[in-house]
Formats: sequence, structure tokens, C-alpha cells
Amino acid sequence: MSYNSFGHMFRMTTFGESHGPALGCVVDGCPPNIPLTESDIQHFLDRRKPGQSRFTTQRREPDTVRILSGVFEDADTGGPVTTGTPIALMIENVDQRSKDYGDIKDKFRPGHADFTYWAKYGVRDYRGGGRSSARETAARVAAGAVARKVVPGMAVRGALVQIGPHKVDRERWDWAEVERNPFFCPDAETAALWADYLDGIRKAGSSVGAVIEVTASGVPAGLGAPVYAKLDQEIASALMSINAVKGVEIGAGFASAELTGEENADEMRMIDGHPEFLSNKAGGILGGISSGQEIVARFVVKPTSSILSPRRTVDKAGQETDIVTKGRHDPCVGIRAVPVGEAMLALVLADHYLLHRGQMGG
Amino acid sequence: MSYNSFGHMFRMTTFGESHGPALGCVVDGCPPNIPLTESDIQHFLDRRKPGQSRFTTQRREPDTVRILSGVFEDADTGGPVTTGTPIALMIENVDQRSKDYGDIKDKFRPGHADFTYWAKYGVRDYRGGGRSSARETAARVAAGAVARKVVPGMAVRGALVQIGPHKVDRERWDWAEVERNPFFCPDAETAALWADYLDGIRKAGSSVGAVIEVTASGVPAGLGAPVYAKLDQEIASALMSINAVKGVEIGAGFASAELTGEENADEMRMIDGHPEFLSNKAGGILGGISSGQEIVARFVVKPTSSILSPRRTVDKAGQETDIVTKGRHDPCVGIRAVPVGEAMLALVLADHYLLHRGQMGG
Amino acid sequence: MSYNSFGHMFRMTTFGESHGPALGCVVDGCPPNIPLTESDIQHFLDRRKPGQSRFTTQRREPDTVRILSGVFEDADTGGPVTTGTPIALMIENVDQRSKDYGDIKDKFRPGHADFTYWAKYGVRDYRGGGRSSARETAARVAAGAVARKVVPGMAVRGALVQIGPHKVDRERWDWAEVERNPFFCPDAETAALWADYLDGIRKAGSSVGAVIEVTASGVPAGLGAPVYAKLDQEIASALMSINAVKGVEIGAGFASAELTGEENADEMRMIDGHPEFLSNKAGGILGGISSGQEIVARFVVKPTSSILSPRRTVDKAGQETDIVTKGRHDPCVGIRAVPVGEAMLALVLADHYLLHRGQMGG
Amino acid sequence: MSYNSFGHMFRMTTFGESHGPALGCVVDGCPPNIPLTESDIQHFLDRRKPGQSRFTTQRREPDTVRILSGVFEDADTGGPVTTGTPIALMIENVDQRSKDYGDIKDKFRPGHADFTYWAKYGVRDYRGGGRSSARETAARVAAGAVARKVVPGMAVRGALVQIGPHKVDRERWDWAEVERNPFFCPDAETAALWADYLDGIRKAGSSVGAVIEVTASGVPAGLGAPVYAKLDQEIASALMSINAVKGVEIGAGFASAELTGEENADEMRMIDGHPEFLSNKAGGILGGISSGQEIVARFVVKPTSSILSPRRTVDKAGQETDIVTKGRHDPCVGIRAVPVGEAMLALVLADHYLLHRGQMGG
Repeated sequence: MSYNSFGHMFRMTTFGESHGPALGCVVDGCPPNIPLTESDIQHFLDRRKPGQSRFTTQRREPDTVRILSGVFEDADTGGPVTTGTPIALMIENVDQRSKDYGDIKDKFRPGHADFTYWAKYGVRDYRGGGRSSARETAARVAAGAVARKVVPGMAVRGALVQIGPHKVDRERWDWAEVERNPFFCPDAETAALWADYLDGIRKAGSSVGAVIEVTASGVPAGLGAPVYAKLDQEIASALMSINAVKGVEIGAGFASAELTGEENADEMRMIDGHPEFLSNKAGGILGGISSGQEIVARFVVKPTSSILSPRRTVDKAGQETDIVTKGRHDPCVGIRAVPVGEAMLALVLADHYLLHRGQMGG
Repeated sequence: MSYNSFGHMFRMTTFGESHGPALGCVVDGCPPNIPLTESDIQHFLDRRKPGQSRFTTQRREPDTVRILSGVFEDADTGGPVTTGTPIALMIENVDQRSKDYGDIKDKFRPGHADFTYWAKYGVRDYRGGGRSSARETAARVAAGAVARKVVPGMAVRGALVQIGPHKVDRERWDWAEVERNPFFCPDAETAALWADYLDGIRKAGSSVGAVIEVTASGVPAGLGAPVYAKLDQEIASALMSINAVKGVEIGAGFASAELTGEENADEMRMIDGHPEFLSNKAGGILGGISSGQEIVARFVVKPTSSILSPRRTVDKAGQETDIVTKGRHDPCVGIRAVPVGEAMLALVLADHYLLHRGQMGG
Repeated sequence: MSYNSFGHMFRMTTFGESHGPALGCVVDGCPPNIPLTESDIQHFLDRRKPGQSRFTTQRREPDTVRILSGVFEDADTGGPVTTGTPIALMIENVDQRSKDYGDIKDKFRPGHADFTYWAKYGVRDYRGGGRSSARETAARVAAGAVARKVVPGMAVRGALVQIGPHKVDRERWDWAEVERNPFFCPDAETAALWADYLDGIRKAGSSVGAVIEVTASGVPAGLGAPVYAKLDQEIASALMSINAVKGVEIGAGFASAELTGEENADEMRMIDGHPEFLSNKAGGILGGISSGQEIVARFVVKPTSSILSPRRTVDKAGQETDIVTKGRHDPCVGIRAVPVGEAMLALVLADHYLLHRGQMGG
Repeated sequence: MSYNSFGHMFRMTTFGESHGPALGCVVDGCPPNIPLTESDIQHFLDRRKPGQSRFTTQRREPDTVRILSGVFEDADTGGPVTTGTPIALMIENVDQRSKDYGDIKDKFRPGHADFTYWAKYGVRDYRGGGRSSARETAARVAAGAVARKVVPGMAVRGALVQIGPHKVDRERWDWAEVERNPFFCPDAETAALWADYLDGIRKAGSSVGAVIEVTASGVPAGLGAPVYAKLDQEIASALMSINAVKGVEIGAGFASAELTGEENADEMRMIDGHPEFLSNKAGGILGGISSGQEIVARFVVKPTSSILSPRRTVDKAGQETDIVTKGRHDPCVGIRAVPVGEAMLALVLADHYLLHRGQMGG
């Protein structure tokens, strides 16, 4: 109901526009006594930060986070821990370039939210996309950094697995490689190929789509809530809420349309005295509930709508016109969606960890 | 938070197990003064009803709906109208075959929710899948029939667009054909091909996946609520909540990964004095808000997990074993997901129509 | 947001009108493996049932409850236990007397919801008050019977403490007496006085207000959630949602206006090695969180609006008129509010027990 | 579910501790195109501000509000208007006196939330009460200032009607007087009496309780949502969420226990062609829905728990001890609760105005 909140028991409410004074979030429902410093959060914000390579927007935002509430000194260690009260996180906007927005002030950029915000609200902050800007995702990454600390033993990771027509080679997948290239690519060879390919896109003033894969290991079996808070439903909701995402799939996903029941069944055997699955077509979720296997989800990000080629459009006055979107933009906005996708997955799992504990105890 | 409710302002809460005395739902938040009879609802339940062709389960459930509350005689016409109070709908289970469930009582069927329900709750109604059965979707279709009446001029339709490797030919798309074959297929030639293909699957005791497309026309621009109740997010959540769904996409969906910004942009022109889009890669949603174009979403349903080939599994006692799932099952459970997908789309749109009206007036 | 639901994690959704086919509720979020039979619930419904003395309405409703879902045989005992899925409870209406409602069909009865329902919805089920009837509270009592089983060791009790000007004598308080008279009065002498007094009211066709006190012992410290789900806030919300209630207070309540800080402070001492309070002005709640003391709340029920003296009113057509409310009514509707108040208190505490367990573990 | 949020469609989430860097709130769901400046909000914050007379705490907080998001220039006027996106409001704490909190760090002050926060969370920010401090209500007043602008024609007012044993004389009620004395007292004679009385309390280092009345005129008929979002229920929840409140009543409230049905009935007549009530025992709400009459609610605030007389208590280590609460405190915390009560009433009504418009249109 609250449009700018996400989650049930572990709940984030975000605020802020691209060119306003600040953006941030309130994280509510976090358990107490979890060590938390600004640098814990800053680490993840830095991964999402713009301007770190020639493949992302050149806007220079330090994205420095400030904790306004919800932490206090631990009685024993004296170090900062969560108190169970709301954690407000603020990031001030710094590099709002004082440019002339005259061109986009009254024109609707194709593929952007310009037309629909105007149709809905009759007013919009057109500077940098206002509230529809992907800058809002900085708040998600900050909240996600807190969420990662809630489920003991859980590790959430993400990688870019496709840019345009070029997919990673899963045989060469190496998680360590993800941190070594500007694409969060788990495969060095593909990363090199993407660099060439994206240079072409970038120089042409064009853009291209991408697919991201996010995973979570160490998730206990039993999380998720049939029927209308299924874990895969919640993950789909979380990932589809990210700017420019047009599709989400879990496990085998859309490929399962072509599988038979025999191929799709994840058979089970006892391994080391525990029931284990022999494959993971389900992506770690059966009947909306985690199975204890790795959670695997993918989402597609459409090409950045801001491109240099003129596109036909109309303006608020109902005049036909053309538009070219100048300014600083990502040639493949999917790249920076990797840490955002990780954050959203962590948020869902933290939330359902608490929900499960509530109904079940333990 | 409530696991068995869906929606915010127009809200459905479902209950019931596959072999319990009854299933149903409470529809809350419906506007008053909407004409509503049991036959309005029954029409849609009949489309989802099992046993209507050799391609769906042979369980014979009349799925007769009874309205328990929330309608009363209109002061003028005397006919039944909604009163604004909760509409309780009940469907009694009739054909719960008194079979021996011994085999599945203690074994976890691969691909089913057996293991995860047990891991979560420590108890489960194993008869016909209990609460995890797709019988629950009858309640959704009933609620969806009410939802269809909420948005003036809106039409929600669905079609099966892929079974196994076989996709419909979009050049031959004919909505009228959807009601003429047992597959909700919009293309007679493909329907014939599917019949042959599925007969083979069925006779082999196997199953196969499918893709469904659902659309809504007549949806006003402005519905949807950034940032965490984006219309596409809500649709993804709604469709992913359907049993066996593993992926959801909007508009160009996963194909947009391979598009450039130029290809993906839906340009605009003034047509008959109104701003109109020249294409619909966005699936009718920009920035999480409806654009006035047709809403287009697709979802994939995995192959039915109940198959005749023995699969390796374990039981509650931790013993390795094999299992064959007998009983009456759908060779392609995706077929009957078509009216369910329609219902879920209608529910999302009814909900957001009311939410929009609340924040904006009008 | 959902108008007919109450609770967050342990959540009840009710439906039904006074003269419709049935009323009931769906209880969602109940932990699994709690033994539950229809007779567990019937016990509490029987306490609320009308027609049990000359001091309550003579409508004869057996209020027989039927469990439609959410329980299944325990693997070990074979007895019915909750499964963690929604528990649907249905009570069929039996004694809807086929009378002529002509008089109240178009007139607004003073003190009733007739005018406001009509102003809001433009349509209303006028038979017996429709949805605004206190018959809806049967569903609450049924759900409350489930709630009582959620918090280990918790006991919820209620008593009528005032009818008209006559208050119970707290020196003579005896909980056992509550079950021995038709008023849920904890003091036999006052019960006798009330019988005389109410006979007078009843014979005059008049009615009178009352005050109910509900308490819960065995509530662990720590329940409640600052800032906007304070335990006292939730109790106030729960009790004020009961028909005809016009005020709620916790602990010393309104009397605390006249106390000094010294008088109001509940001092603490160590007793048997545990911190204990020496008084309970706070009613068991400090800062919105339970202290481990007994929870004590009171609420006032206004006099039944249906009386035999003619009252001035208007009708739907805007004509001035008089109205006399015949039919079967309670001379003091506060009496039957006792089990309803208990149920609501149990619902709040079950909900917050689960919420607390979710955020805190344990 | 979210502990620090209030409201459904018009929703406020607050954050911050008494001695942290800042406190504030995010207001979500506000309609767009409402003129809003910081001074609109500051006006109401100034009424709640501490240190304005000798009868409130001497802490000197300017309570200067800063709007961080959610407003933008109107296309026509250029003036700031709401945009429909979340409005973040921040108030920096200034006068957190660097005192020694050693005494209360480990001891539980009777009547405070010290013990229960510790029992719940195992950690607490003891400085000035941390999150349990009434400083949080500054955020409510800020959000309430926005809420006041949502319902056209609505006016929300409040007054202190009782301090200790001394009630205002309703015959002398003058709303203009409320702004002329430091008590929000509508009666100059009583204000003078209270000044003397409170000077005695203050000099004795004691404190006393109070009763506040809040009203809203210009509220359209039809607001409120049976059965579990009744308007009086929501008001009770809102007012009971304020620090130190122990009781709430609507209209005749607890006095209705002693009334007969005849006395309590608000009769109706046609006046100027409209149905009107001849009295307002109901406080403007029937069946949980507004009647169009003035909404009238009262709440009681217990005496400030911080007093100079030593009280017996225990500490975290389980040692018995005494405590004297020094520092700057309100002798009657009820005084500053007046603007807070107004804010909460405005928030409820704004929320239900939007909810009603959503379900009903218009």
C-alpha cells in the first residue's frame, strides 16, 4: 500500500530525487544487537557508484552514507550495534550539474517515465528523471547492506551474464573474476569481448540491454510463505521493482517451457545423512518455499532509453517533435544493476527469515 | 504480511485445501453498487474447471460457487449488487477420491512442495497436495471475476502461446479461436499440432511446460505506483504466485537484452489529437505506470511434476526410495493456467485502479 | 488497508451480514501443530451466543462453527492440528426471522450505522443491520479461540464491571463468579443488583451502557512494537473496533489525569530473584511494550440504540419522521461484549507474540 | 507490521532518537499539486517546541525542519508543490546536553520504557530516552502539517481540558483563547488557575496528568471503513500511540456507560434541506463511519514519569536501588501533547479521505 516501502517485517522505505538535496531510506524491523557501521554500508555503495569506468555514467557522486538513527554503543564492546529501532540512512546529492533542462522539461523521452509520471501526477521533477531516476537504487543498496547481516551464514552474490547478444560461458564461471572487471562478469574472456562491444555501443551514442544473475547460498529451508508471499513471488516483485527491468525468472525459468517433467524434476538422495537435491532446476524454491539449495534468479534490464539518435515524440502541449537525450548516461544500465539486484535479493531473504521465525519460532 | 491475501485496496484472501470440505475466498474492498450474481462468477470458473478435455486432469469437480456475503438487492432494480462489504465466495470440494495416499504420505515427490512444506511446517495435508494444490486457483478465478467488473471498459484476455518447443504463429493470431480449442490457443493450426504433441506426452505418462500471454486493454494511463508498487512489479508478483510459474516478463521481456536503445524505444506521435505510441516494447508500462497502451505480460509454467516415470527421492524417515505419481494429473498444467493468469492480471488492475483513484481523485 | 482484516502476522479476515446465509472468518498466519477442534471454538461461541438469559436478545442462533480448512491429522496422534495454512471458520445463520423490515428500510435509526452506511455506500443490507450488526462479533470470538492457543501459558479473562451507574465492588471480585451469572459479573451482590436494575430497563423498552474489563496474565515481557504498533495502541484499536464501543483505557486510564508522578510510578523490587513491579498503574505496558505484569484494559459500550421510545429521525427521501425500533434486542449490549473483548485481546497478544518472535528470535 | 509507520494510503514513517544526530519522517502517498513549504510545517512545529514557557522542558531545540524530497516547482506558479512522491522531512537535534547519563544508564526509571526496551531488545539508547522519547512526536507534527492540507475544508483543533483535578469550564470555551496561554487552554480563568497549580507541582519536582480534546470540522460523511478500520478505531490507535497516553474516548465516551438509549440517541431533523443531527453524543462517528458532524475525541496523558522524588527501582544487574530523575522535563507532558494529538487526528482523516475516495470514487 505504501508506494515507497518494500518488505513486511524487515522493511525499507526510500525517498529522494535525482537532483534533490538528498536521498535515503528508513530500514525498519531490523533485529537488535547486529554490529553496523557506515563503512559496512559504504562498501556496497561503492560497488554501485557511478563513474568508475568508461562504461557507466560519468556523473561523479561520492554516495557517502550517513546513519541518522537506530544504532548505539553495545554495552559490552562499546561498538555500534543496531537497537531494533528504525535505521535512517542519508546520502546527499553532490554532482547535480546545473545544466539547462529546457529540452526535456516539456518533451516526453521515449522509453522513459516522463509521459506516465505526467499522466499520473500532472507534475514532475524533470531534473535527471526526478524520482524515476536509478539514483533511487543507492538507497536500496544501503538497505541491502543491512539486510545481508540478518540471516546468519547467508551469502548473496550477483553477476552480469549477458550484454546484448553476448552471454558468459558458464564453463568458465569464476566468482572471483566478478570483482576484477568493470562488468561484474564472472568470465574474463567474455569481459574482454564485452569491453570491445560496449565501446562500439558507447561511441555510437547507443545503448544495449543485459541479463543479471543473483544467487544466495546458506539460505535455510522453509523460508517463504504460501500462497501470496511465495519466496519466488517476492523475489520477482523485488527484482521487477528495479528501474528498467522487464523480466524475471527463477531456476530454469523460461527454459522450463521446453522441458519434460522427467527433465525438470530435481531428484533427491541422502548425502551425509541429509536429504539433498541432485540438480537445481527449481532455483532453490519449491511451492514458494526455500528448499535449502542455492537460490538462483535472473532478470533482464532493457537498454538505456537515453540515446543520442533523435527519436520521434510529443510534448506536453501536444506538439510532435524529436528528442535527443544528451547528458551523462550508462550505455548499459544493466551493469550497475548487479549490486542492486543483490541488495533486493538480500532484502527479500532477510524479511522472510524474520517472517518464518515469527510464525515458526526458532 | 498476510500470507494468503493478495492486493492492497481490492484484496482477496483465499483458503482451502485440495481435499478439504471447501475452498474459497473473501474479496475485500470492492466498490459498492456493482451488479454481481453467482453466474457472473461461474462463467469464469467453468473455463478453468478440470476434466473438460483429455488434456487436463480427469478429476470431476463442478466448482459451483456460492456467494455468502457482500451483495444485496439494489434499491431501484431489486437485482443483486455489491454493497462495499466483504464478498465471501465458497466452492465445495466434491470429487475427493477416497484413494490410498500411502505412497506419497511419507515420500517427497520431486518438483512438488512436499519437501518444503514439511521442512517449514513439520505437518502437511498430503491429500492431493493440500494447500499447495492448484485447486486453490479456483478461488483466484472467482475473485478475478469480481475484479473484472471494477475498471470500466477494461478487457482482460489470455492465451497459451507455447507448449514445449511449439510456439503459436503470431501472424495467425485470432482471439476468437481461443475459445474454440481445449488449449486457449489463438491459432487453429498450432492447436492441432499441440493436440498431437500432447497426446504423445500424455500417453507416455510425461508432462511438458508452457508459456501463457495475458493482456489488458482499456487500462487508463496513470495506474501503478512508483517505487515499490510498480505496475509491472505487481503483475510479476501476481503471476509468479501461480503454482508452477518460474518466470514472468512484460512487453519485450527477456528479448530486450539483445535490443539497442533505438530498437527498444516506443516513439510517440499525435493521433486523433492524442499522444500515442508507435510500438509497444514496454508492454504498456513505463516507470512502473500504465501508459494507456495494452498491458502485455507472459509467464512460464514448468512441466507438471506428477509423472509416471519413477524418480529417485527420499522419505520423511531419511530413506532413499523411488516414487511414481499416479492419480489424475494435467499433462500440461499450463493450459488451465490461462484463466488463472487472466484473473491475477484483473486483480492487479482493479486494485491499482482504486489505489490511483484514492491518491489522485477522479 | 483491508477493511475487514485485523492483525499483522496472526491475521483474521471476517465476512458476513446479520441476515445473510452465513458469516465467518479466515484466520491466517497461525503457527502449525496446535491441536484444534470445532469444540475448542464452540466453547467460546456458546458464551457469546444470544438468547441465553432474559437480558440478551431473544434471537435463537445456535452459532455452530464449522472448520473448512487449515487443520489436518497429526502424524503421531492422528488428532487434528493446525497446518500453518489459513483456517476458514463458517457459522450459518439460522434464525433470520422473515419479518417486514419496511419501517427501517428507508429510515435512519438514531445511534445506528444506517445513515453513515447509506452516506458512504449508497446501498445497504438493512436486514438486522447487515454488516454493521454485532453478529459479526461471532467470527471474532471464533478466531479468538484459536488465538488463545498461540501464546503458551497465557490466560485471557473478562468481566463486566459497570452497568449504568452501578459498578462492581472490587473488594468482592471473584473470577469464579463470572461464569455463574448472566452478566459475566465478578461479584454476586452486584449481579443481583444488576438483575433488578436491568429488568426495569428491559420492561421500559429502554437500554443502558456498560464497562468491560479484560485482562491477560502470563504475557511475557517484551511484546509490542514501538512506535506505531505499541501494545496499548493495538489493544485500543482492537477494542474500539467492537460495535458500540466509545472509549478504551489501559491500567489507571483516565484516572491518571488526576495522579501525580509519585502516585503513578510503579516502583520495582527484586522478588525471588526477578525484577517485579509493586503496583500496576501502567496496566502491564510501558513505552508500548509489555512489562510481564498482567495486561489490564477497559472499554465502554454505549446503550443499545434500538429502543421502544419513538425517536425523531429522517428518511432516505429527506422526510422528517419518527421511529420505534421493534424486534429482538439486547437491553445492555455490553453484556455480550465481554467474550468479544476477550477475543480481541487474545488476537492482539497472539499477533504480537509472533511479531516479537520474528524480530527477536526465540 | 512496520513498527514505525502509521497510516495506509497516506502513510508516515518516523525515525530518530532523542540524542541522535537527527529525527524525521517520510510521508508517503500524499496527493500531488498541493502547495507546501517548510514554513507551512514550521508553524506547527513551533507550537510543539519545548522551552516556550516555564511549564515545559527547558531543552532548547529550534526544531527546524528541512524538506529533503517530494516537492518541486509548479509548472504555472513556479511555487513548490507536492509531486506525489515521498516527502522526507528532517529535524536535526541541537541541544543534546553532554551530561553524565551514568545514573540512568543501568537503572530502570519507574514509569519509563527503560525496563521494557531492555527486556525486548537487550540494548537501548538511554540518552534522553532514545527512541522512546517524546521528541519523536516532532516528526508527527511535521507530517500532520502536510496531512492538514489533504482534506479540503477540514479544520483540526485541540485544547487541553483537564490538568490534575482541574477541568475547563465548557461554558467559557473560546477557541481563540487556546493560542493565548501556554496551556492550549480554551478558558482564560482555568488557564490562570492551572498556572498557579502547575507552579506548585513544578517547584515540588513533581508532575501531573492531563486530558486533551481534539476535534475536526469539515469532515465529509462517509469516511471510515468497517469493520477493522473504523474511523473511531483508527483515531483510538492514533492517539494511543502518543507517548504516555493511557486512554481514549470518542464523543460521550466513558460517560455513555451511565446513559440510557434515549439519552444517547442523536436524533435527526432536516435543516436547510439537509439531514442534521440534533446532538453529538456519537462524536461524529456512527458504525465506524463519519456522519458529517464534528469529530470529537479525548485522550488522557499520564503524569510525567521523570520526577525529583526518589523512587525504588532495580538495575540491569538485578540490584535494588533508588532513582531520582534529574534533567529537563515537563511537569505536565500533556500540554505539549495538544499539537501532537491534532497532528494524529489530521493524519487519520487525510488517510481515510484518500481511502474513501479510492473505494468510492469522487
